[in-house]
Amino acid sequence: MSNLHLWDKNDLENMEQRYRAQFVNSLPGIKTPFLVGTQNSQGATNLAIVSSVTHLGSSPALMSMVMRPNTVERHTIENIKDTKYYSFNSVGLNSIEKAHQTSARYPREVSEFKACGFSEIWEPGFEAPFVKESLLQIGLRLVQIIHLDINGCDLVIGEIVKVKAPYQSIGEDGSINIDQLDIASVSGLDRYHQNKKMIRLGYAKPDLKPLVLEE
Amino acid sequence: MSNLHLWDKNDLENMEQRYRAQFVNSLPGIKTPFLVGTQNSQGATNLAIVSSVTHLGSSPALMSMVMRPNTVERHTIENIKDTKYYSFNSVGLNSIEKAHQTSARYPREVSEFKACGFSEIWEPGFEAPFVKESLLQIGLRLVQIIHLDINGCDLVIGEIVKVKAPYQSIGEDGSINIDQLDIASVSGLDRYHQNKKMIRLGYAKPDLKPLVLEE
Repeated sequence: MSNLHLWDKNDLENMEQRYRAQFVNSLPGIKTPFLVGTQNSQGATNLAIVSSVTHLGSSPALMSMVMRPNTVERHTIENIKDTKYYSFNSVGLNSIEKAHQTSARYPREVSEFKACGFSEIWEPGFEAPFVKESLLQIGLRLVQIIHLDINGCDLVIGEIVKVKAPYQSIGEDGSINIDQLDIASVSGLDRYHQNKKMIRLGYAKPDLKPLVLEE
Repeated sequence: MSNLHLWDKNDLENMEQRYRAQFVNSLPGIKTPFLVGTQNSQGATNLAIVSSVTHLGSSPALMSMVMRPNTVERHTIENIKDTKYYSFNSVGLNSIEKAHQTSARYPREVSEFKACGFSEIWEPGFEAPFVKESLLQIGLRLVQIIHLDINGCDLVIGEIVKVKAPYQSIGEDGSINIDQLDIASVSGLDRYHQNKKMIRLGYAKPDLKPLVLEE
C-alpha cells in the first residue's frame, strides 16, 4: 500500500481549524452514538448525542464518555454532577435525524426530548430519564470525573446500574446481537452508517486459527 | 417499547463471570478495532488488537485507548512506556481473522506481526512499526497515562504525529470517507461487522431540520 498519503504533525497543525476538526474526528472510524439523558436538580430534562462511549470494565460494570469544554455538552455534565445519574440510549436507524438534532445549541430551559421528538421514560429510584424509543437503554450512576488538563476535556466514568434491551437479542453466552437492535453508527462528526454482521470468531489461542462461531 | 427486559445492578452482579463479560462488553455497540503496533527498547515488535480507541480532541490532536490489567495488552503498554511511540492501524475486511488472532497470548519474544501474517513498515524518526496492509495508519507519541484506581485500567493518551491514508478518501472539508477504507468494525468481544454509509447531516441548529449533505 505504497500509495498512501502521509500527513505529519506540521501538516495537522497547519490545517484550517474546521478542516482539522473534520479530519481528526474521522480518525477513530466507526462508533455507536448514544443519546445521554439527564435532568437538573429542578427536574428539567436534557438530551445530548455523544459518540465517545467506551467500555471500561465488566466487574464492576463501568463505561466512560468524554465531554468537551464549552459545548452544548456542558448542560449534560452539570446535570450529572447535580444528580449523579444519567442514561445512554441507542439511536435507531429511523431516528438519526432527530438524534443528530439534539446537538443543536438549544437554550438551557429547552428540553431536547420535546424539541427533537423523543419520549421520556423513567425507572423507580433512577434520577435520569431514558429514551422510550431506544431499543438499548443503559442507566449509569456517576463514579468519577477525571479532568484532562491537556485540553480541558472531562472523562466521565459511571457504573452501569440498569440495562434495558429486547430479551431475544441476548445470546446464550450473554453477548448482545447488535444487528437485532437496528442501531445507527457514526463516523467523524456527521456521517451515519448501518452495520451488518459478517462473522463471529472464537477466543484466540496461539498456533490455532480462530474458530468461526457464526457467519 | 414496553417489551424491553430490565436488568438491574443485582442482576449484573449475579451473572456468571464470562456471561457478564460478554454482556457488558456488548453494551457500547459498534466500535472500530485498531491494531496497535509497538516495539520494546531492544527492537522486538508487538501487535495487539484494541477496540477502545477514542477521539479526545483536535487541537492538539489527541486519541485515547484503554488498556486492561493482566492481559496480553501488558506487552503493548510496557513498550509504549519504553519508547513513547505507538501506531493505530485499521483492520481491513479481508484481515479480520488475522487481526483477531493477535489477541492470543503469544509469549513476549514472539512478534504478532510474524505470527499473524502482517508486514511492518517504518517511518523515519518514528519509533514504532506501522501495519503495511492497513489503509488507515495513525502514529502517536505518548502524552500521558492515567491509572484508574477503580479497576486497574490505564487510559493511554497520545498526540497524533503521523497519519497515512489514501488521499482520495479525504473529502473537501477534511472528513474521511470511511467507506472507502473498507474497514471492519466490532461489537462485543468477537462480532465483526461491515458498515454502509446511509446519510451525512449538516451542523445542527435549533428550529431547523438537519441539512442532508449526502445520501
